[in-house]
Amino acid sequence: MIKVGIVGGTGYTGVELMRLLALHPQVQLQVITSRSQEGCAVPDLFPSLRGMVDLNFRAPSVDAYQDCDLLFFATPNTTAMTQAEALLTSGIKIIDLAADFRIKHIPTWEQWYGTTHACPALVAEAVYGLPELNRAAISHARLVANPGCYPTTVILAMMPLLANQMIDPKTIIADCKSGTSGAGRNADIGTAFCEVTESVKAYGVSGHRHLPEIREVLQTLNPDVDLVFTPHLMPMIRGIHATVYADALADADQAQAIFEDTYRDEPFVDVMPPGSHPETRSVRGANLCRIGLHYLRGPNKYVVLSVIDNLVKGAAGQAIQNMNLMFGLDETMGLNSPGMIP
Amino acid sequence: MIKVGIVGGTGYTGVELMRLLALHPQVQLQVITSRSQEGCAVPDLFPSLRGMVDLNFRAPSVDAYQDCDLLFFATPNTTAMTQAEALLTSGIKIIDLAADFRIKHIPTWEQWYGTTHACPALVAEAVYGLPELNRAAISHARLVANPGCYPTTVILAMMPLLANQMIDPKTIIADCKSGTSGAGRNADIGTAFCEVTESVKAYGVSGHRHLPEIREVLQTLNPDVDLVFTPHLMPMIRGIHATVYADALADADQAQAIFEDTYRDEPFVDVMPPGSHPETRSVRGANLCRIGLHYLRGPNKYVVLSVIDNLVKGAAGQAIQNMNLMFGLDETMGLNSPGMIP
Amino acid sequence: MIKVGIVGGTGYTGVELMRLLALHPQVQLQVITSRSQEGCAVPDLFPSLRGMVDLNFRAPSVDAYQDCDLLFFATPNTTAMTQAEALLTSGIKIIDLAADFRIKHIPTWEQWYGTTHACPALVAEAVYGLPELNRAAISHARLVANPGCYPTTVILAMMPLLANQMIDPKTIIADCKSGTSGAGRNADIGTAFCEVTESVKAYGVSGHRHLPEIREVLQTLNPDVDLVFTPHLMPMIRGIHATVYADALADADQAQAIFEDTYRDEPFVDVMPPGSHPETRSVRGANLCRIGLHYLRGPNKYVVLSVIDNLVKGAAGQAIQNMNLMFGLDETMGLNSPGMIP
Amino acid sequence: MIKVGIVGGTGYTGVELMRLLALHPQVQLQVITSRSQEGCAVPDLFPSLRGMVDLNFRAPSVDAYQDCDLLFFATPNTTAMTQAEALLTSGIKIIDLAADFRIKHIPTWEQWYGTTHACPALVAEAVYGLPELNRAAISHARLVANPGCYPTTVILAMMPLLANQMIDPKTIIADCKSGTSGAGRNADIGTAFCEVTESVKAYGVSGHRHLPEIREVLQTLNPDVDLVFTPHLMPMIRGIHATVYADALADADQAQAIFEDTYRDEPFVDVMPPGSHPETRSVRGANLCRIGLHYLRGPNKYVVLSVIDNLVKGAAGQAIQNMNLMFGLDETMGLNSPGMIP
Repeated sequence: MIKVGIVGGTGYTGVELMRLLALHPQVQLQVITSRSQEGCAVPDLFPSLRGMVDLNFRAPSVDAYQDCDLLFFATPNTTAMTQAEALLTSGIKIIDLAADFRIKHIPTWEQWYGTTHACPALVAEAVYGLPELNRAAISHARLVANPGCYPTTVILAMMPLLANQMIDPKTIIADCKSGTSGAGRNADIGTAFCEVTESVKAYGVSGHRHLPEIREVLQTLNPDVDLVFTPHLMPMIRGIHATVYADALADADQAQAIFEDTYRDEPFVDVMPPGSHPETRSVRGANLCRIGLHYLRGPNKYVVLSVIDNLVKGAAGQAIQNMNLMFGLDETMGLNSPGMIP
Repeated sequence: MIKVGIVGGTGYTGVELMRLLALHPQVQLQVITSRSQEGCAVPDLFPSLRGMVDLNFRAPSVDAYQDCDLLFFATPNTTAMTQAEALLTSGIKIIDLAADFRIKHIPTWEQWYGTTHACPALVAEAVYGLPELNRAAISHARLVANPGCYPTTVILAMMPLLANQMIDPKTIIADCKSGTSGAGRNADIGTAFCEVTESVKAYGVSGHRHLPEIREVLQTLNPDVDLVFTPHLMPMIRGIHATVYADALADADQAQAIFEDTYRDEPFVDVMPPGSHPETRSVRGANLCRIGLHYLRGPNKYVVLSVIDNLVKGAAGQAIQNMNLMFGLDETMGLNSPGMIP
Repeated sequence: MIKVGIVGGTGYTGVELMRLLALHPQVQLQVITSRSQEGCAVPDLFPSLRGMVDLNFRAPSVDAYQDCDLLFFATPNTTAMTQAEALLTSGIKIIDLAADFRIKHIPTWEQWYGTTHACPALVAEAVYGLPELNRAAISHARLVANPGCYPTTVILAMMPLLANQMIDPKTIIADCKSGTSGAGRNADIGTAFCEVTESVKAYGVSGHRHLPEIREVLQTLNPDVDLVFTPHLMPMIRGIHATVYADALADADQAQAIFEDTYRDEPFVDVMPPGSHPETRSVRGANLCRIGLHYLRGPNKYVVLSVIDNLVKGAAGQAIQNMNLMFGLDETMGLNSPGMIP
Repeated sequence: MIKVGIVGGTGYTGVELMRLLALHPQVQLQVITSRSQEGCAVPDLFPSLRGMVDLNFRAPSVDAYQDCDLLFFATPNTTAMTQAEALLTSGIKIIDLAADFRIKHIPTWEQWYGTTHACPALVAEAVYGLPELNRAAISHARLVANPGCYPTTVILAMMPLLANQMIDPKTIIADCKSGTSGAGRNADIGTAFCEVTESVKAYGVSGHRHLPEIREVLQTLNPDVDLVFTPHLMPMIRGIHATVYADALADADQAQAIFEDTYRDEPFVDVMPPGSHPETRSVRGANLCRIGLHYLRGPNKYVVLSVIDNLVKGAAGQAIQNMNLMFGLDETMGLNSPGMIP
């Protein structure tokens, strides 16, 4: 049994980790921390976990984590970077679900996150936790940077085309639609029910923190990549739908086969038949990215449709997938639930 | 491995059975039938099952079921009653998720369902599949009538009070709120998105088929039971919330303890602390009934709040719970997922 | 032209007042106040009012209101009571959309609102602003207490039955379902989109502030009235659906006619044909209460279904209806929009 | 008073026309037709219109329309084209809310709509009813082709940039998100509540009928226009959000001023401050297109955000705006309601 802790467990990523770990046969949840909810029984905050999780939130401290093999940081940005070094030194592995270790280029990170990075050396060591890109490195990592939800969706949509020189790397436009749980569990008027439901809006058009993350990862496939990234807020809880446009180079006829070949052995990427329109609900609750490929002959563009559940393949599920790799377990352990329709 | 079939698998009960059975370690889904979708691959209708279910819908026929140990009838009412006798004779057990075998009193059934019953003798044999009420009989049954969703919610709310003579049995009012999936997967203007969302309405106030079902079952606990039952349609997919009122007799102080005692060993009924307000989302996707008990001193009434996921504890999950009992498996096998929040 | 001001205009009642007043031919909005948004242009907070309202929020002060004939208090409870006396003395009429003047019995008010009332004498003078009950008095009032949203729905449902001795006054149960806008425009985790949508729950079962308000008003019709009142939170923005149960006395056959007679000349109460199931969406955006009456012969009970838009007939629309009466205008002026379907 | 009729009034466009016309001071609704609902009272189908519309649906016939000055065709495509000639000859003006007269190039129309056009000569005469583009012509028209909802949103977003040579006309990508009411009022499993809510999907990526309509209209501004158009279905009733991308040519600094100049005198287009993110709910129920302009320096692209209510500025409201122009009324008559927030 792997002994795990969750640091900062009162958000949607925290409760989703608990929901999924409750069914994982090789994990024992040892500790969950929260400053604001110290002492509160977990099921008093999340009644869905009554009978499933028998822990109280504890204040974060070194003591709290001493029995753990692995910590999931489900904290806000800039928390994990101040604690990672000491924890790793004491032999505890870390998966950070926030953004502290996702961007390798420190000045870029510091520009977008507005502060000095606390441990640039660990950024260099950290592995970007997208198994479809970095499986081997993840398997040997002490510190994994769990990808952002938008980046997961967009990178998986573009990887086959970029890796096979199928598109002009400077023409990518990622028009993304996200459910509201991506904004976290906060008392914020902007995500109040009556403000969000029955409406759609774009946000952060002039710049969103997931843009440099996507760009840096895609540039490892082709250094000329640039992209436009536009997030939109949707009146639904879960799900991201990326609609990604790019100018085609030669051989569009091979594109479908290239997608299928790229992901043939991937347990958590599903390439649909050509011309499909994946629905976000088809992956609700599931650790899965489902992709539909379209090629438009007139304008000679690809339109790649890519959907995930932002809390699963976009956060907690992918973190558990990474954990499975880091501990030598079957990569799919605990992650086999199909999407919930309806 | 139990070999099971699903008869009539294109509705929400059918897809929910497949979602849950996909994770059941002792079940092999052999066959799924549909007249309208004959030949269609299951995942073409339900993309959430891509990679999970590798079957095509077949036309219903005796041949189709010959390898099965058990059939789930997820068909419209009046289908199972015409096929049950032959199937049982050939040794196949049956769980009917429709209403053909729920009501023992044949004239009542015939009045509410508007037709002559095809096999009254089997009605007498059939066991009403509410494990909290009929566990032993279910274990030995060949034919189980899976309860309706509203009846499950209301009966579990009233059982402890009626069984312990805590209420006046003639004063029960069950004001029930149901998600739209309870209406089934149909091309019907009444359940179109733009007709249902952002609105609430009552329906069937003058009479709903679940009323005689609830009444008959509750009368096994106290023959004097009568009740008012008012269903309402909610703008949400899953969930039933029953708000059940009844006049208190003596000893209201003991009511909470009586609920806790009644359900102490029940894996799928959760009695919350006194004064709790259960949310339907806390049981989303879970095979669970969660109950909050209130006593109002002034009017001397109990208000019992009871929630389930209508597709799980109200349909497919309860059917699998019954299957586990009928085949001597651990009653909770395959049914341990917590509710999905958010 | 009536010159009006809105005190505390940043909530949903405030923006709804502005939406409706924008179309009122005899009203000029002079001033709108807010402490938190002082200086902010109204359309910067509510973009729907761009081009419609050309005012900035001002700090509340006596100066701000000096040109006004009427003030709408869209403030939290306990605000209006501290300012009403001075304003009335200076000749400004007041409609309080909060609860400061709704309950005549001061000890009851003080118990439920947890503070000492600042001006009991004005409570005695204030008129409860339900035109269907108090039209004449409203016409001559300086100070109107605009009814709560739940009370409006329940009182209009019960008035004809109580006034005509059709029911046992001690048997009323009002099971009410409300959209989330009833909780106001607040940064509150309990009304966050991901917490509210796709779920239903009861709240305040042991006691809600609208209970004593309903009881006191209904007791003016029959002093023996007592009732159970259970509010539920619905995953929708607007709308209240009251399902009100009561034991019938003699002459149930006359009930429909009595409803129709009672409301025949009422512009904003619509009695549907017997057996109807009104939908909340049928009054979305409209100043209207729509009622469907059911009588159940077996249990000898009435079930009255009553729907309003909580922000219109339950708040801002009814306030404008009261204003029209107070200033001798056509009662329906500015309030003729039909409900918005879909 | 203008005497108007609605042909085919049982859909969402029909009920929205009635909702808006109920408040129009110069219109008398004479007749509304429907084959399927012949004889049914309008409020029996749409309870929101109880007390507002006192008509029964009639079978369509020449007789039915004889008193009308104007007919709105709210029928499916290919209906109006078979009746227009006779009606125009008899002196009745026509606004077709379907697609029969929107596309001038007959072979293109016939390709996308799959049938032979019944009256090509009238297509040549018909005026495309976008007042911001064709105001003068509309004023003199007998026959107006009311624009599609997506085309209205996209054309208003691109008009200023194209008319002023600000963009490369071959680089337009219109990623559009629409509420479900755009699919009409149909008993269709694809728009059932449980299929649509809590999910997002693209559809018609390989080709949608609004593509040739947008292209042809934009080509009147610049014959080199080509575009990619991707519609998505949103879990909400009303609203379209277009996110339109195009490569900038010189002078991006002038773009905001050009938008403001273009629409300065337009009553129903609102250009927001630079960098704004318009929400669809801000125009809910209102006849308004609200636009936010963004320029991205790095990729040198414009991102124009444009929102409408698909049933108002995208259908019924724009039709009434056109009617006002055709009959010499104030263009804004009956169309002044602000958007409904919340």
